[in-house]
Amino acid sequence: MTGSNEDLKRLVRTIPDYPKAGVLFRDITPLLGDAFGFRESVLRLADMLRGVGAQKVAGIEARGFILGGAVAAELGLGFVPVRKKGKLPYDTVGLDYELEYGSDRVEIHVDAFGPGERVILIDDLIATGGTALAAVNLFRTVGVDVAAAACVVDLPELGGNARLVNADVPVFTLMDFPGA
Amino acid sequence: MTGSNEDLKRLVRTIPDYPKAGVLFRDITPLLGDAFGFRESVLRLADMLRGVGAQKVAGIEARGFILGGAVAAELGLGFVPVRKKGKLPYDTVGLDYELEYGSDRVEIHVDAFGPGERVILIDDLIATGGTALAAVNLFRTVGVDVAAAACVVDLPELGGNARLVNADVPVFTLMDFPGA
Repeated sequence: MTGSNEDLKRLVRTIPDYPKAGVLFRDITPLLGDAFGFRESVLRLADMLRGVGAQKVAGIEARGFILGGAVAAELGLGFVPVRKKGKLPYDTVGLDYELEYGSDRVEIHVDAFGPGERVILIDDLIATGGTALAAVNLFRTVGVDVAAAACVVDLPELGGNARLVNADVPVFTLMDFPGA
Repeated sequence: MTGSNEDLKRLVRTIPDYPKAGVLFRDITPLLGDAFGFRESVLRLADMLRGVGAQKVAGIEARGFILGGAVAAELGLGFVPVRKKGKLPYDTVGLDYELEYGSDRVEIHVDAFGPGERVILIDDLIATGGTALAAVNLFRTVGVDVAAAACVVDLPELGGNARLVNADVPVFTLMDFPGA
């Protein structure tokens, strides 16, 4: 489910040719930095997610921590950081996944979830969805149900949203940039 | 100013010999993962910071994003990410600073702040305060007043809290671990 939220969308900055030629990078830092924009982003995501029946919110390092933490606090849920390899101090469980060039790894603490808990996964943006899908698979490996994935910006033509839906994850986003 | 907050302090896990022998690492992920603990940490920090007269909250990458985002949303303020070198997509201003071995750099976007704005700096923990002081100096370089610094855990014997206070930054923390 994607809203229009034109009042928030005008606060997203487009940076051409970043990080490489031909890419239009959608930069949400002006939205985060705007008091109205940040608060409304958190409240509108929280409103969409209130009914999904989760006990925890997980955020993907590093930008997913900003909205993930704020939405977790707004919903009164615990927060779980999903980090790249070797960043968490305690015993971890992780999952390697393939990127266009090479591979990467997502990790959580072994005791991040209790039995039967359901999680909402939050990041700032969905592009190809590679890291989000890896996090979903990691949660399922440890017996955690994924109640929803949510983000501010969806780039639908990169296919991540569709891949999450195909994996039976309901996706909630505030805005999309078709053709991105 | 440091509270006692014993109910929150029991949710902090101590990991011996991490990241190296002899260090007692204070891990706040169990506190973040606990619905009561996370929500109360955000509310108690926000209550201490409501009167300092800031327009923005800045969080230090990456763990400072979690509480920084949540406290900004609770206070109805904009959020500014302070990132390590090369992570921000738009034009940046940065400051190099010395570590025990080598050096590092903090950066913000050139348009992160408007004229006359004041900022609250948030991180999860104050140890030596090196990165926090670099962020304070960076803000001052661009004409931004630092209204306060805040974190969950203070390790007073490592001196960061005192160094910030000596730099005329009021410091608010939820708990301390003396002798850490």
